[in-house]
Amino acid sequence: MKIALAQINYHIGNFESNKSKIIDCIRKGEYEGADIVVFSELAISGYPPRDFLEFRDFVEQCNSLLAEIASFCTKTAAIIGLPTFNKNPKGKPLYNSAAFVNDGKILSYTHKTLLPNYDIFDEYRYFEPNSEFNVIKFKRKKIALTICEDLWNVQDNPLYTINPMDQLIDQEPDLMINIAASPFNYHQTATRKEILRKNAKQYSIPLFYVNHVGAQTELLFDGGSLVMNSAGELVDELSYFEEDFRIFDLDKVTSDDCPVLVGAMRSEIEDIHDALVMGVRNYFQKLGFNKAILGLSGGIDSAVTSAIAAEALGAENVYNVLLPSRYSSDHSVSDSVEMVKNLGMPYDIIAIEEAFNSFENLLTPFFKDLPSDITEENLQARTRGIILMALSNKFGYILLNTSNKSEAAVGYGTLYGDMNGGLSVIGDLYKTQTYELARYINRIKEVIPENIITKPPSAELRPDQKDSDSLPDYPILDEILYQYIEQRKGPREIVAMGFEPALVDRILKLVNTNEYKRYQTPPMLRVSTKAFGMGRRIPIVAKYLG
Amino acid sequence: MKIALAQINYHIGNFESNKSKIIDCIRKGEYEGADIVVFSELAISGYPPRDFLEFRDFVEQCNSLLAEIASFCTKTAAIIGLPTFNKNPKGKPLYNSAAFVNDGKILSYTHKTLLPNYDIFDEYRYFEPNSEFNVIKFKRKKIALTICEDLWNVQDNPLYTINPMDQLIDQEPDLMINIAASPFNYHQTATRKEILRKNAKQYSIPLFYVNHVGAQTELLFDGGSLVMNSAGELVDELSYFEEDFRIFDLDKVTSDDCPVLVGAMRSEIEDIHDALVMGVRNYFQKLGFNKAILGLSGGIDSAVTSAIAAEALGAENVYNVLLPSRYSSDHSVSDSVEMVKNLGMPYDIIAIEEAFNSFENLLTPFFKDLPSDITEENLQARTRGIILMALSNKFGYILLNTSNKSEAAVGYGTLYGDMNGGLSVIGDLYKTQTYELARYINRIKEVIPENIITKPPSAELRPDQKDSDSLPDYPILDEILYQYIEQRKGPREIVAMGFEPALVDRILKLVNTNEYKRYQTPPMLRVSTKAFGMGRRIPIVAKYLG
Repeated sequence: MKIALAQINYHIGNFESNKSKIIDCIRKGEYEGADIVVFSELAISGYPPRDFLEFRDFVEQCNSLLAEIASFCTKTAAIIGLPTFNKNPKGKPLYNSAAFVNDGKILSYTHKTLLPNYDIFDEYRYFEPNSEFNVIKFKRKKIALTICEDLWNVQDNPLYTINPMDQLIDQEPDLMINIAASPFNYHQTATRKEILRKNAKQYSIPLFYVNHVGAQTELLFDGGSLVMNSAGELVDELSYFEEDFRIFDLDKVTSDDCPVLVGAMRSEIEDIHDALVMGVRNYFQKLGFNKAILGLSGGIDSAVTSAIAAEALGAENVYNVLLPSRYSSDHSVSDSVEMVKNLGMPYDIIAIEEAFNSFENLLTPFFKDLPSDITEENLQARTRGIILMALSNKFGYILLNTSNKSEAAVGYGTLYGDMNGGLSVIGDLYKTQTYELARYINRIKEVIPENIITKPPSAELRPDQKDSDSLPDYPILDEILYQYIEQRKGPREIVAMGFEPALVDRILKLVNTNEYKRYQTPPMLRVSTKAFGMGRRIPIVAKYLG
Repeated sequence: MKIALAQINYHIGNFESNKSKIIDCIRKGEYEGADIVVFSELAISGYPPRDFLEFRDFVEQCNSLLAEIASFCTKTAAIIGLPTFNKNPKGKPLYNSAAFVNDGKILSYTHKTLLPNYDIFDEYRYFEPNSEFNVIKFKRKKIALTICEDLWNVQDNPLYTINPMDQLIDQEPDLMINIAASPFNYHQTATRKEILRKNAKQYSIPLFYVNHVGAQTELLFDGGSLVMNSAGELVDELSYFEEDFRIFDLDKVTSDDCPVLVGAMRSEIEDIHDALVMGVRNYFQKLGFNKAILGLSGGIDSAVTSAIAAEALGAENVYNVLLPSRYSSDHSVSDSVEMVKNLGMPYDIIAIEEAFNSFENLLTPFFKDLPSDITEENLQARTRGIILMALSNKFGYILLNTSNKSEAAVGYGTLYGDMNGGLSVIGDLYKTQTYELARYINRIKEVIPENIITKPPSAELRPDQKDSDSLPDYPILDEILYQYIEQRKGPREIVAMGFEPALVDRILKLVNTNEYKRYQTPPMLRVSTKAFGMGRRIPIVAKYLG
């Protein structure tokens, strides 16, 4: 039996596009001699469809499309993920299903059993869990078909009491197929491979695994679909961060002399880089835009954002605007100009002084003799924000947000100012990771001028300002933030790790009292195990550590 | 047995405040002869604690507090909601529990069985469902204790296969106690009362019900705790939209001559009004602010927002800023001045011309000969937004957002301009409901000048602009939006109701393609069954109806 894995970049709710990609792969599979083409979880709808699933019309369209796609499966079978209706009067209205299609017809459905409902996952909001287990018989083989999380109870996961493969193995399947929508984070690729390996070994049959690839707003899917033999050895894996299609011969995979991969592991920073490039590219493509604008400050964050955007969209499509004020240092402009010239990106310099002055004039009668404070700093950031949005509106460019995770965490940014943008590119990277990414970007030649990487970070909103005036050094800040955000450690636990109690209290308080700012920030490309956004839900009006 | 119902406005994670309110009620109950004081669901933490529940420290603090509170229950017992740890190695890490406390000790825990995981609810994200059912024996009576949703399967709710009261009734309880966190919407009060009535009648025992009251960011809790007799008749209900405490004698409730209430139903618009006033008041109180600022445009939305804020915070604490431009009509200013004078609110007039011109000057070299378009409209809105935020920053006022739900739905507003604010007051009210609320506000005397209510709505961002230039009449728009947003009807179903297909397509497309704007808007006080915010989760980068 020849099994094709179709690793596709779907577009949520774009039924025409998803359908034509699926049909193309079915045709390709047929042409290249595949017996069956396997698509990923919720392929027809795209993943995650979220509350579109509450629209009967949406789910009906998915099912109509499946019927249409089935008519193309006359010579080649297919397994395709989609939401289906639960016809039982009890339970949630939908199933997260995999349709098995052959002879031009829909032959059976397999429903997902283990429904993740943590972090970025809300599957229990929509889906009824499966409770019936049947292998699929095809070409004199028995296929144990499962959907994503269904394989994640192999290590005695405390969240689940059922293990679907334990049910299916009694029916003596010859192989496992798992269709997935497993989002990327910089630990996930290794974790996922380990879980899959344990399944293959535990059940001693080969495993064919198909993941999504591509960006869905904040969620990034890295692909990496794969085949493992019954010893849990990697026979092959598909591309990372791009679409792919490959056909495998089951006989070869099960033969004793099937070669296995001992490929080099990708580095975390390489993964992060490729994930962000894909994230920016897909965000623009799927929204129908091709040009970005951003404010280039001379600092590390906007430099890294600009470089990533240039790689994603082409340097000529990234419009860099330098917006110096009376507090900007000379090197802010010269470093930025060097940077845009390194990549050949378009740029302009717009001094904000005139607009800033006009606000000061307007407001002086109301501010009276009150001293200058954070208000005037915010005013500069917001003047820049307005100018960038005006250019964005006039030319149809999407504004990229350049904030990093350390800033977003402690509220070191101006709402409606530098926190503006359609998409935050590095909002899930701590400052220290941003430096690491800058070094990676410069791995072959200097893209980001060395001075941008080495000078002390500053917002340049008042004379001689430095980030270190109001924040601890970033390595310390980032470690405290990581323990609190990613590891969900409380203050006592973090102090017990050796950090100063007053500092820990101050940082955690900053994180919690700035929730109101993060509520209004753009979506951030998620690369960590706990990103700001859909996977982290904190009340604004609360007093915990606040 | 004398049962006290304590209807309290909790503050999420503000353990000191919640503890002292709880202890005060226990003392009051003891003093007034109550045998037991009943508090609501997750009282100690406040509801909803959301992802604070993922912090072990947070849950430990809740449980320490319970132990402390228990020491005060030497003469009076108490039932108190809080999160507790699931000690079983399998399942979610927590329970949503009710502790029964007496003789200074924690005697038992009852866990919640039915965990809502739809709309604004995420309880399956944190909690393991209960599967053990035991009545509480107290003062020779048996109490069937349940938590909120546990009573919501009385009408054969398709979501649930278990009905906790069906389990408990076999143990022949004498009464039911339900502790709840049931958020307000303008249909909920009647629905909830009907569900409770069905329970009392079906199990033929009296019911004591304690709800939360107060605002938790977007969620509003209306209180309305109540007692029903075994015939499902209303014996009494506590206040709406404010804290309350009342003691009931079980013997009287069960006696044949217990008087019952046939109180007048509150009107929807009265409920909405009171909910919004409470929402604004609590948002400020719990964040430690007392003054609001807003832009008063001369239109209905800002007028209603200002009037609600004046009622919530006191007229003297609502600073109205009139920000006329070259396109503002004379009546915009004169109507606004009349309005602020009606209520005696502070105000200023700041013409935006100078700042707007400075942006035009700055941008002319880059815009070249491109015609004026939405860019210049947004520039005005953003200039206003900057001025309001500068005043907000300088004086420590919270900016109120004045957008309505119709605008928010179709994206008729400027991001980083009039969409700014810490809180959206009428963001869950359609334009037609906003007019209704204006009439209600004027029920006794004219607060909002009649001309603001009767003139045609306009954004006044270009000469002679009217909302009706780009949008259908609001009664039609609002009905289509209601069918799509609240009722989750698809385009074919809405067209089948008699609306023009091209119009329906245009409106639904506007709703979906403006998801990116709503992602960055302030939290909105929720009064409908489906508000923008935590209960409506739609992907940004998607193509469904887009």
